[in-house]
Amino acid sequence: MSLVAVDWGTSSLRGALLDDAGNVLEEKTAPRGILTVAAGEFAAVFESVFGPWMQRPDSLCLISGMAGSRQGWVEAPYETCPAGLPDLARRLHWIEADRIAIVPGLCDERDGVPDVMRGEEVQIFGAIQLTGIATGTFVLPGTHNKWATVRDGRVTGFRTCMTGELYALLSRHSILARTLDADAPPDEPAFLRGVACAANGEGLLHNAFGARTLGLFERLSAPALASYLSGVLIGEELRTQPLQDAGDVVLIGAPALTARYVLALNTIGIDTRVLGSQATWAGAHALHQVLQDRRHL
Amino acid sequence: MSLVAVDWGTSSLRGALLDDAGNVLEEKTAPRGILTVAAGEFAAVFESVFGPWMQRPDSLCLISGMAGSRQGWVEAPYETCPAGLPDLARRLHWIEADRIAIVPGLCDERDGVPDVMRGEEVQIFGAIQLTGIATGTFVLPGTHNKWATVRDGRVTGFRTCMTGELYALLSRHSILARTLDADAPPDEPAFLRGVACAANGEGLLHNAFGARTLGLFERLSAPALASYLSGVLIGEELRTQPLQDAGDVVLIGAPALTARYVLALNTIGIDTRVLGSQATWAGAHALHQVLQDRRHL
Repeated sequence: MSLVAVDWGTSSLRGALLDDAGNVLEEKTAPRGILTVAAGEFAAVFESVFGPWMQRPDSLCLISGMAGSRQGWVEAPYETCPAGLPDLARRLHWIEADRIAIVPGLCDERDGVPDVMRGEEVQIFGAIQLTGIATGTFVLPGTHNKWATVRDGRVTGFRTCMTGELYALLSRHSILARTLDADAPPDEPAFLRGVACAANGEGLLHNAFGARTLGLFERLSAPALASYLSGVLIGEELRTQPLQDAGDVVLIGAPALTARYVLALNTIGIDTRVLGSQATWAGAHALHQVLQDRRHL
Repeated sequence: MSLVAVDWGTSSLRGALLDDAGNVLEEKTAPRGILTVAAGEFAAVFESVFGPWMQRPDSLCLISGMAGSRQGWVEAPYETCPAGLPDLARRLHWIEADRIAIVPGLCDERDGVPDVMRGEEVQIFGAIQLTGIATGTFVLPGTHNKWATVRDGRVTGFRTCMTGELYALLSRHSILARTLDADAPPDEPAFLRGVACAANGEGLLHNAFGARTLGLFERLSAPALASYLSGVLIGEELRTQPLQDAGDVVLIGAPALTARYVLALNTIGIDTRVLGSQATWAGAHALHQVLQDRRHL
């Protein structure tokens, strides 16, 4: 039996072909995020990208990410926290019986306000497998960052932070864009200065404006200002997390981004484990195993 | 002698003709913010809009706002806080001697990060005249809000908050724009729910995402979500102000915006005085009087 693991997000489509032991045999990426796919075209796009893999005997495909949203292939329900892998396995939304399934996202609620993730849950369960850490804090930086609390292998709750999207908006479309070079390589001292600034109690709405005035008074260069703003945002994100109870912290994401969180978390004495895309494939494999175990019972 | 008071901002140009007693004889508004004026064209635009007023004998024009910035007519220096009206009068940047002057902006610095205002300083000194409040907190909501501390008629310090710009970016250009009607009329209960949410300690980066999920789960309508987001942002702004030492609070700005701050401040038991554009003209008049008094000494 072979597993096709697919992470179908808003802006990209990634997949991996795995063997029974979870080894990655092949990977594919296509610029076919759900925003590029018209309603009714998802099956055709899937076939064009993953058709060859799906022709192998006993192929099974697990799709996570925004493909399961209202704007995706088919809307899959959210599983409510706390949730573990068996819960996801039970709530798979089958597009073709025993062949193609969409993994449900997770939802959590606090003070009457819901929170949601789609795709990150598979990465978290993969990271649990890869690190052996079944209790701790799992952080997934991206456009909408997720901070998930895991206890005994189950996600007990999580929070989304719009840090990535806000960085993009502020650095490219706000007044800050006039004095800031959003394409500059990282500047570590400027980044750490921003992280430190975020702890001053003045709030993000004020501190972000420092990335304007430090440019206006030529105290920081255009490339340094981008890193400073990134530090202000990530520092603000850290400020609002209950890190005293974090336990082990696992970061999952693109290396350029997780590196910034490692730096910022180090300033407050927190060490981290860091994983990349392998967490997605490991999560799909773990979910596949739950399905197989259940079949063998 | 007649005074032409001009507030030349980024996106609009406003002016008033005042008599010796400070009465407004006439007002003008033109869509000629500094972003629409090419370098070298400021004198011509000024003449085309205010030429007739300036032909009166002994006319004197005081220009405040972004016309004094690097992208404006001529760059005028910032006056450092603490600063009072006599300091502004001393640091006027004369474009034509005794005829047309640009009012300096103010700067303040905290922990090595400068802050700036241009134009709001005239409004604050006008509000001091109009209210008789010489010690208190003066709040000017807009794209970049200013919170100024005034002691004995002098601005002792201030902070900028990017609340207005962030609301525009989030409500029109972020993922929140997909479920939110940015052009909806205010919804007071939704606004106050957002204000209350901002006090939960979870931070703006997280709380703003609630304006996505409350829409996704159909707990708030598209029009209500706009007010909810506004409440989250203004609540966050209030959370970071040292309001326990605020003293009298004076709000200066457009009625639709100051009304929101009145509501939000009322939830924490703070009453306010509210002023509109008359503060600008009163400030220019007060500054003019300092000039005249000096001349008579």
